[in-house]
Amino acid sequence: MPVSRRISDSAVRRLSHYLRALETIQGEGGGTVSSEELAGRGHTTAAQVRKDLSHFGSFGKRGLGYNVQELMERLRGILGLDRIWRVVLVGAGRIGSALFEYPDFKARGYDCVAIVDADPEKIGTSWGGTVIRPAEDLEAVVQEYDVDLVILAVPASAAQDVAKRAVDAGAKGLLNFAPVQLVVGDGIPVEDVNLVMELEALSFQITRADAT
Amino acid sequence: MPVSRRISDSAVRRLSHYLRALETIQGEGGGTVSSEELAGRGHTTAAQVRKDLSHFGSFGKRGLGYNVQELMERLRGILGLDRIWRVVLVGAGRIGSALFEYPDFKARGYDCVAIVDADPEKIGTSWGGTVIRPAEDLEAVVQEYDVDLVILAVPASAAQDVAKRAVDAGAKGLLNFAPVQLVVGDGIPVEDVNLVMELEALSFQITRADAT
Repeated sequence: MPVSRRISDSAVRRLSHYLRALETIQGEGGGTVSSEELAGRGHTTAAQVRKDLSHFGSFGKRGLGYNVQELMERLRGILGLDRIWRVVLVGAGRIGSALFEYPDFKARGYDCVAIVDADPEKIGTSWGGTVIRPAEDLEAVVQEYDVDLVILAVPASAAQDVAKRAVDAGAKGLLNFAPVQLVVGDGIPVEDVNLVMELEALSFQITRADAT
Repeated sequence: MPVSRRISDSAVRRLSHYLRALETIQGEGGGTVSSEELAGRGHTTAAQVRKDLSHFGSFGKRGLGYNVQELMERLRGILGLDRIWRVVLVGAGRIGSALFEYPDFKARGYDCVAIVDADPEKIGTSWGGTVIRPAEDLEAVVQEYDVDLVILAVPASAAQDVAKRAVDAGAKGLLNFAPVQLVVGDGIPVEDVNLVMELEALSFQITRADAT
């Protein structure tokens, strides 16, 4: 079962949005920002911004707003972005390659130290200098590089086995693209990205709006 | 601004998980299911299952559990899966092609009626019988096929313009893979998939666990 969370997933996502908004504001030369302005850029309310940030100690001064640089640094620390995260990508298919070339991936401190795949035609080739290693090397790779995060971009039928092997070898968290609910040990966070479930969230909202 | 939601995103996501669990249970021959069993398969609690389902009327009977077939049909209706959704994919790159070949995409009723892209080398080629049309055809395609959903798998710099054009032409919802906050009209739901933000949610949880 995933670790129980005192801070909701949606609150963490808002922190990520605030950080991006602050980066934009800093790029535009802004030194301070109000909770109203952050709210506008993050599609939420000023009260929500203040509440979200209050979980992590006191920021900003009433009437003066937040210091942009200071708040960015605090948010980076809270989100764990003040360090390098070593990542292994399992599955060198389309989703894997899309992720590998995602803007920000490296800039945010996620270092893809290795790629593994089961396809003999892919093994030994490399993506941007990172060699694709055989699937059976997963444990060796996780240990060799002291890997933090494992990205599962494998078919649903393979995902649970890969997840268990990754966690047993020492992975601390999993990002799962396979359309299957993984069962891993307590305390190992799993984030699922299921593209069809994203579409379902849209069709749900449109259906409800039509019905009212 | 996205439409305000009485039902949270995470609640909708749980409904999607319950539906998948029910399909598995039916595949295994189960005719009824308890909220406890649904909870176990959806990584939540029985009380949460009952609460989620109670939003949509009364299901199941105390002590007898839920009828699997009936609950599946109700959930499909709630999620808007009892109809076909016409989808246009904008951006025939890696993310676009990964999505296009995602298992379930078509099976759930999402019909990709057209693909548009700005790359002259891709225009005129086809993916599984669907021809890639030029970017400037977006409005024509949305109107021609009475499109419901538009998937934005385009660079961040192009996303806001594509979003506006899609909505102006009649799109009812957007699935956005570009790492940028879209501003669209009230009542147009937008789901964002930002792969780096998913990793941030993991590094946040690991950082917090290490700190406690």
